Amino acid sequence: MALQMDAAALARFMEVEFPQTAGDFVIDEVGEMRIRVRMPVAHRHLRPGGTVSGPSMFALADVSVYLAILAMIGPKALAVTTSCAIDFMRKPAAGVDMVCECRLLKLGRVLAVGECLLFSEGVEAPVARASLTYSIPPER
Amino acid sequence: MALQMDAAALARFMEVEFPQTAGDFVIDEVGEMRIRVRMPVAHRHLRPGGTVSGPSMFALADVSVYLAILAMIGPKALAVTTSCAIDFMRKPAAGVDMVCECRLLKLGRVLAVGECLLFSEGVEAPVARASLTYSIPPER
Amino acid sequence: MALQMDAAALARFMEVEFPQTAGDFVIDEVGEMRIRVRMPVAHRHLRPGGTVSGPSMFALADVSVYLAILAMIGPKALAVTTSCAIDFMRKPAAGVDMVCECRLLKLGRVLAVGECLLFSEGVEAPVARASLTYSIPPER
Amino acid sequence: MALQMDAAALARFMEVEFPQTAGDFVIDEVGEMRIRVRMPVAHRHLRPGGTVSGPSMFALADVSVYLAILAMIGPKALAVTTSCAIDFMRKPAAGVDMVCECRLLKLGRVLAVGECLLFSEGVEAPVARASLTYSIPPER
Repeated sequence: MALQMDAAALARFMEVEFPQTAGDFVIDEVGEMRIRVRMPVAHRHLRPGGTVSGPSMFALADVSVYLAILAMIGPKALAVTTSCAIDFMRKPAAGVDMVCECRLLKLGRVLAVGECLLFSEGVEAPVARASLTYSIPPER
Repeated sequence: MALQMDAAALARFMEVEFPQTAGDFVIDEVGEMRIRVRMPVAHRHLRPGGTVSGPSMFALADVSVYLAILAMIGPKALAVTTSCAIDFMRKPAAGVDMVCECRLLKLGRVLAVGECLLFSEGVEAPVARASLTYSIPPER
Repeated sequence: MALQMDAAALARFMEVEFPQTAGDFVIDEVGEMRIRVRMPVAHRHLRPGGTVSGPSMFALADVSVYLAILAMIGPKALAVTTSCAIDFMRKPAAGVDMVCECRLLKLGRVLAVGECLLFSEGVEAPVARASLTYSIPPER
Repeated sequence: MALQMDAAALARFMEVEFPQTAGDFVIDEVGEMRIRVRMPVAHRHLRPGGTVSGPSMFALADVSVYLAILAMIGPKALAVTTSCAIDFMRKPAAGVDMVCECRLLKLGRVLAVGECLLFSEGVEAPVARASLTYSIPPER
């Protein structure tokens, strides 16, 4: 199954469709059924003590699965998150980017399932894990 | 078990400890093991089509469980989210607040579990449900 | 929306379709978008110390959501579990039935979401909570 | 961190502590922070159509994380499951064993997190994924 969108095409799609958040995320690398997305940590992501907030990590996992799906099926479909299970396991390191390694475990006609490991850049032990389900609406 | 903090005390705590996000949430009502928190929907919460973003809903559920715990144990403890499972069930209504009805199912010495239903104000069917686990560190 | 199957019809359906497990569960009460199912605790459900096993509690939550769906849509559809998030919060009481209070939060054309609280009979604090998603295949 | 128990020691522990279910599971291979456990599929695991039941898959994931933890910390601790999120993605193949590939993402002093992929033996696409949290009680 060939990629329908590469990193540049995904980035342009985000700028057009999600101008409010596109700048939050950088696509490091995209492949078949997998993607690596980076979140440069800015002041607005932080909680007291310099830690990255849970909602910011959720957002990173969510956008990663979304982009991994679009890379495979192209920009035409409007996929929506139907569920997420996320475990926060360690405190993120201060002052470094968060990196999300995501792979799709299933890409069906109507449902997709992705799983993510989130890391503080340069630290081996994962900060969080997440699994997400997306619903892929039928094309009109 | 008496409340340790009322809505006004929780709001002041948020303003001091989480100045970046305190304005996003309004405490409607707090009781024993339960709270209702409102998120006035602003432009930054929105996705294309006027829908509230998943990360915004996650943030609302997360802060609701956090505040429900603090109301019971007081401002001294630093509780952290350890896991969340969230289901997005319906598209939020446009142009109205999101309201989170949260109750604590367990408030143990080291772990707390809360569950939330999220509604678009004035609409009966819930938009999302979430369950969250918090770890409560021992006092030093 | 009227009930398509009452408790007796659901019990007969289970005996025919799931003869291996039908005897494990008793339908206490069924209503619109809700059901209460009881699991008489037998030796095979137990773990050391007399506690009910996690898989047994999962099975009780799973069958409860399944039956709540069938009560609403009738015996013709073959619904399958697509996901479950379950939190085990307290040790079950020894020697008493487990009771599951389940309600459907969504019953869509292709997806249903149910949530459950599991109790040891006669004990107020819940032993576990679970949320489950079912996929409802289109009729042929 | 050296293994505290090998496959043979884990199997003996299961026979003594969980005689009711020990025969259901075979430890294929155990390593640091990881294990592969096999469930020979018997009649009692099946649902109509020859598919493996959800509770059986839950049980396989649950025991896999439990054994992966014991392999690292030894038989002295009484770990209990506190939560599980599981996604059922594909119908299992008929007539073959289920195999669970499990790794521990975190093994803290009080909490452990493991994730599992479940396969029908000989089939590449996973049948299910699961993440589980265990609580590790302090030693007395």
